[in-house]
Amino acid sequence: MTIAIIGGTGPQGSGIGLRLAVAGEHVILGSRDAERAAAEAATLVDTHRPDGRLEGMANADAIDQADTVILAVPYKGHAELVTSLADTLAGKLVISCVNPLAFDKRGPVGMQIEDLSAAEEAARLLPESTLAGAFHHLSAVNLHKLDHDLSHEDVLVCGDDQESKATVIRLAELVTGGRGVDAGALRLARHLEPFTAVLISMNKRYKTNTSVYITGIRQNGDTK
Amino acid sequence: MTIAIIGGTGPQGSGIGLRLAVAGEHVILGSRDAERAAAEAATLVDTHRPDGRLEGMANADAIDQADTVILAVPYKGHAELVTSLADTLAGKLVISCVNPLAFDKRGPVGMQIEDLSAAEEAARLLPESTLAGAFHHLSAVNLHKLDHDLSHEDVLVCGDDQESKATVIRLAELVTGGRGVDAGALRLARHLEPFTAVLISMNKRYKTNTSVYITGIRQNGDTK
Repeated sequence: MTIAIIGGTGPQGSGIGLRLAVAGEHVILGSRDAERAAAEAATLVDTHRPDGRLEGMANADAIDQADTVILAVPYKGHAELVTSLADTLAGKLVISCVNPLAFDKRGPVGMQIEDLSAAEEAARLLPESTLAGAFHHLSAVNLHKLDHDLSHEDVLVCGDDQESKATVIRLAELVTGGRGVDAGALRLARHLEPFTAVLISMNKRYKTNTSVYITGIRQNGDTK
Repeated sequence: MTIAIIGGTGPQGSGIGLRLAVAGEHVILGSRDAERAAAEAATLVDTHRPDGRLEGMANADAIDQADTVILAVPYKGHAELVTSLADTLAGKLVISCVNPLAFDKRGPVGMQIEDLSAAEEAARLLPESTLAGAFHHLSAVNLHKLDHDLSHEDVLVCGDDQESKATVIRLAELVTGGRGVDAGALRLARHLEPFTAVLISMNKRYKTNTSVYITGIRQNGDTK
């Protein structure tokens, strides 16, 4: 599988890309700036020597070569960027890990947005793509520390297409070595995304990098 | 400490009350119907013989005798009930575990409400009380099974008053035997409450009772 990561030079996008490449997947970091994407990929390859191929190029070229596209961009500019890439994204699985958050003197908080979540906004703007939401809660810092065990950090996956959701769950397992968990319908992205504000709040309070583990589900979703 | 639980005959309220009484606290289950509250308390005492005193009475009488009040009512009718009790709640610590959720053929989802969360709505309606949010994610089923170990089910506590939040964190530790975690400002209740829709969605998918554990925080919040 070839996975393109839009926003692939940001900390979250490059961290997910690095983990997928380490797991042996072919990963293309995408950016508005092809040279910046190539440089980031080269740095990651030099530093970590992943088993999978990891390269960087302009967003549209990255999408063109990929089966699956991860959207890891800031929410600011999200609608414009997604709209500009709609044609190349048609027919593909698009996984949003966009977190629309605001910060003020009282700390982090989820933004109130018209579509209620970035994933639902992307679904509206990409009627010919299949949307899923995932990877909202993984700490970029921990993604980049390859010696940090992520296997107890659950990836909560939401989406309305069951087959695509199964693909995202498998990708999640590759990223963390732990679980992808089927969290339900795509619209639940409106609750997954802003939960990141709660995690960031706890990161500040406890001077750490938090994530989420769901109790009550046996390993790999086996509840027998 | 004496703790009143408004909505004390519901599954969540009676479950939290039972666990607090087992931990030795004095708990008063409150209800619109004093007899129903007394009967529920008597049943719990007969069944589980908790160390702490557990009784039931009308909401206003329960609040009158308590230092701390837990609001465990359905969101439907929440504003009217809270308004009707505002005078007796003045000067007290009020902990909301109200989850404004809707259910349709696509599953559970958080309601879009004017104050963004039940806790913020209660804070607006109770200007002379101190509000906190907690206990949103504990499964009522597991609360009632006393042999179910809750010590890995974190209670995420939000509030703007640090001293009250420390009290709620201690109560959380009594309920679960595990951690109360300082999740940040009261407004983050708008993200904690609807996250329960995600948990209910996973409960259906995996046929279990899920809850939340936060990774990256050492036990009891000690990050050293």
